[in-house]
Amino acid sequence: MEFTLGDIAAHLGGELIGDSAVRVTRIGPLEGATPSTISFLSNPKYQSQLAASQAACVLVSPAMRDAAAARGAAIVLDDPYLGFARLTRLWAQRLRPAAAAGVHPSAVVDASARIGAGVHIGPLAVVEADAVIGDNAVIGPHCVIGRAASVGEGTRLSAHVTLGFGCSIGGRGIVHSGVVIGADGFGFAPVQGRWEKIEQLGNVRIGDDVEIGANTCIDRGALDDTVIENGVKLDNLIQIGHNVHVGANTAMAGCAGVAGSATIGANCTVGGGAIVLGHLTLADNVHISAASVVMRSIGKPGQYSGVFPIDDNASWEKNAATLRQLHTLRERLRALEKKTP
Amino acid sequence: MEFTLGDIAAHLGGELIGDSAVRVTRIGPLEGATPSTISFLSNPKYQSQLAASQAACVLVSPAMRDAAAARGAAIVLDDPYLGFARLTRLWAQRLRPAAAAGVHPSAVVDASARIGAGVHIGPLAVVEADAVIGDNAVIGPHCVIGRAASVGEGTRLSAHVTLGFGCSIGGRGIVHSGVVIGADGFGFAPVQGRWEKIEQLGNVRIGDDVEIGANTCIDRGALDDTVIENGVKLDNLIQIGHNVHVGANTAMAGCAGVAGSATIGANCTVGGGAIVLGHLTLADNVHISAASVVMRSIGKPGQYSGVFPIDDNASWEKNAATLRQLHTLRERLRALEKKTP
Amino acid sequence: MEFTLGDIAAHLGGELIGDSAVRVTRIGPLEGATPSTISFLSNPKYQSQLAASQAACVLVSPAMRDAAAARGAAIVLDDPYLGFARLTRLWAQRLRPAAAAGVHPSAVVDASARIGAGVHIGPLAVVEADAVIGDNAVIGPHCVIGRAASVGEGTRLSAHVTLGFGCSIGGRGIVHSGVVIGADGFGFAPVQGRWEKIEQLGNVRIGDDVEIGANTCIDRGALDDTVIENGVKLDNLIQIGHNVHVGANTAMAGCAGVAGSATIGANCTVGGGAIVLGHLTLADNVHISAASVVMRSIGKPGQYSGVFPIDDNASWEKNAATLRQLHTLRERLRALEKKTP
Repeated sequence: MEFTLGDIAAHLGGELIGDSAVRVTRIGPLEGATPSTISFLSNPKYQSQLAASQAACVLVSPAMRDAAAARGAAIVLDDPYLGFARLTRLWAQRLRPAAAAGVHPSAVVDASARIGAGVHIGPLAVVEADAVIGDNAVIGPHCVIGRAASVGEGTRLSAHVTLGFGCSIGGRGIVHSGVVIGADGFGFAPVQGRWEKIEQLGNVRIGDDVEIGANTCIDRGALDDTVIENGVKLDNLIQIGHNVHVGANTAMAGCAGVAGSATIGANCTVGGGAIVLGHLTLADNVHISAASVVMRSIGKPGQYSGVFPIDDNASWEKNAATLRQLHTLRERLRALEKKTP
Repeated sequence: MEFTLGDIAAHLGGELIGDSAVRVTRIGPLEGATPSTISFLSNPKYQSQLAASQAACVLVSPAMRDAAAARGAAIVLDDPYLGFARLTRLWAQRLRPAAAAGVHPSAVVDASARIGAGVHIGPLAVVEADAVIGDNAVIGPHCVIGRAASVGEGTRLSAHVTLGFGCSIGGRGIVHSGVVIGADGFGFAPVQGRWEKIEQLGNVRIGDDVEIGANTCIDRGALDDTVIENGVKLDNLIQIGHNVHVGANTAMAGCAGVAGSATIGANCTVGGGAIVLGHLTLADNVHISAASVVMRSIGKPGQYSGVFPIDDNASWEKNAATLRQLHTLRERLRALEKKTP
Repeated sequence: MEFTLGDIAAHLGGELIGDSAVRVTRIGPLEGATPSTISFLSNPKYQSQLAASQAACVLVSPAMRDAAAARGAAIVLDDPYLGFARLTRLWAQRLRPAAAAGVHPSAVVDASARIGAGVHIGPLAVVEADAVIGDNAVIGPHCVIGRAASVGEGTRLSAHVTLGFGCSIGGRGIVHSGVVIGADGFGFAPVQGRWEKIEQLGNVRIGDDVEIGANTCIDRGALDDTVIENGVKLDNLIQIGHNVHVGANTAMAGCAGVAGSATIGANCTVGGGAIVLGHLTLADNVHISAASVVMRSIGKPGQYSGVFPIDDNASWEKNAATLRQLHTLRERLRALEKKTP
């Protein structure tokens, strides 16, 4: 794996300062960079590392042009972090050759399924009746594409993905291993101490450019559909309940959970392990800190948090015990205030 | 998909007010109902929506009979919500034809396995030696039924379910994709800074009418079995540790976790993301709010909660910082009280 | 299943007091033991159960030798709990015969994969090009071993495990069903309101003697590798983000989550449902209580906690409401203190 600075500058479309024939073999942070590393400076707080870095070349913003040029080779870009992201793609394309088109002989594909051009269907995958696989999609080993489900153009499913009957995902998506799309939502009517199942008749509809992390689950809707808009990014082990609506370009970190019928706006972020209760509405641009629990709707953009601060165990025990009397404490304080002129 | 009101009333066993030949094509809430929708009114707080709804027909309780009849067609039922649940089944039966009996030629079924009448075994499923599959059970694609495991009559497993050796599930169960039943419990003896494995010799025993959500895990017991009683409903991504006992008709929402050897009573509910620590006992009819952490046994029925209230980040930071000094605050309050006559 | 006390004493290497021909059929705790049970006493708090137990034989420490001998048969061991752990292995070896060497005819194994001696590859497993499977490893049904991935000697994978391309696990490991190793880390550059993917170019490197619970996910690194050191034990449904480093012999309970680039020391424990935020460092021997959220680095060994104490719902509501004004309360207390001489 080796690229010349000239190749890279051409790929990224920036101004190259330095020798275009110099070769780099890896991407890495400024600190720890070797003379065959290409690095980037996007966060001003790492600026002090620039001068000392051994990197062969650094992606920098126009404001850093002179400082970078004083050190050695550089590529000047409006957004060096975006440049870094695009650089990783250059590497990835070589590391991981695209899956060859074709259906593996061990796959079980129903004759009624419509398979687009250039599609790869891996070993032991199952594609059920009336499923639709868009052009150039990749269906990994052991995936199950249910009856009448559809996968958009160029979307890639890793291993062991389940896409339930009637569910759909748009184009250019990435679905990691073990994802379950379209299991039944959790709906029961209480009847004399036991639970009567409410059949889940909706589907899951997922837009374009969506990425879904390993072992994440998105349940089908009860009567209407569960909807994930374009550009949403979900990390691993996330639970999305029935009839949830996630707005465009919202991102959620690992282990988050969204209960049934919650509506999350566009461009939101939900931190790892955070929980959004059912039937709530979050406006666009709401940001939930990791491990926080959203118990009421949030109508105003901003950052919201609710986590018990960690402490050494003995301190925590004392504070937690006092917390259980907090309301009484307030009453005592109020009484004192009345007494004190 | 179309049913006449006459068909529906016959199926639900209620009194039909109105024209039995009218046809409906979908089920939906009162609000937003079209003239081809059948709807229901079970929660009195939606009563105000009744008069204005365009629904072709509404399931109502006897108390609502006259109000409903004044509006148009209705079916009168003792429990309209149960009626709604049963109605979804009518739709589901048509939407999703039952899997045809038979073993897919790509499945790998050991000759010693006992397969009941009417069983469906999907593509690429694996059934190991001495497994027992009850009549009319459905084993989805890519399921693995371990050695000497058993699946009860009419129980349906979706794709990619793992039922470990010696584990059992009763009749009429539903197991969603990616569920793992019978992985080893987490047991180790600490030995000079490393961990010596304690082999997990128990099994998992699951009763009748149990539903288990996608990617949920139920570990086998250490010496005795992990037990899930009849009628339990588990949502997605739940962790049930070794030797846990979950009482009949208890329901748990997504991302809940129950640590080893905890005993949860019957008719309990555990909210999403809640954690029950190991070796605790919860009485029957205990209800744990979402994201709460049960750190001691609970002997009395009721609703229990413990969540840090979410707030805008700046307010949370101030309150959380003060919380770390709460015990000191109490001491200061006490000192003031002593000084104030 | 039956062993004589003589066989067991020979296997464990301890002194047997009593008749070596006595047979036992099960392992169990002192309480509830039958005359065919072998039991153990490791925790002094259960010492009072010793005299009354019906157990055929008890594993005890030298300090308990006389008390045990007064009751009946015993095996004296320096560490009876370790003895118990080894005893479970004796049972397990008989309950679960080792998988026979050989590649199941339904498995799809690339011709370029290197398969060691004595390896078992189960039905419908997939082994991609250039993968390396060490001697005596067990690859369960439906596992996917990616291109150039490697599995160490004697390591056992249950069903439906995904080991991504280029990822590796060392020797004597145990990986439970549904585990995903090597999905992409969660990395995106924000670009004008949408997310540009940062390709994840690192791998996952896992040491020897590691156990990984069902449906747990370990993401590949962004530029460098995600690293799990020797002897680490991970329970079910755990999320390990990209570039995390977990030190040797650290154990984490179910539903824990570690965000990207966190470094966790050796011999740590992380309780169930606990969350460690990204880019933090935990020293060796740090112990995080269940459901606690680590929001800052921890440099000192010890036990750390941060959980809102559970209470009946009404009490919780009052205390939680007051908590949202805690900072104000402190200000009011301060004002009072100033007024009170």
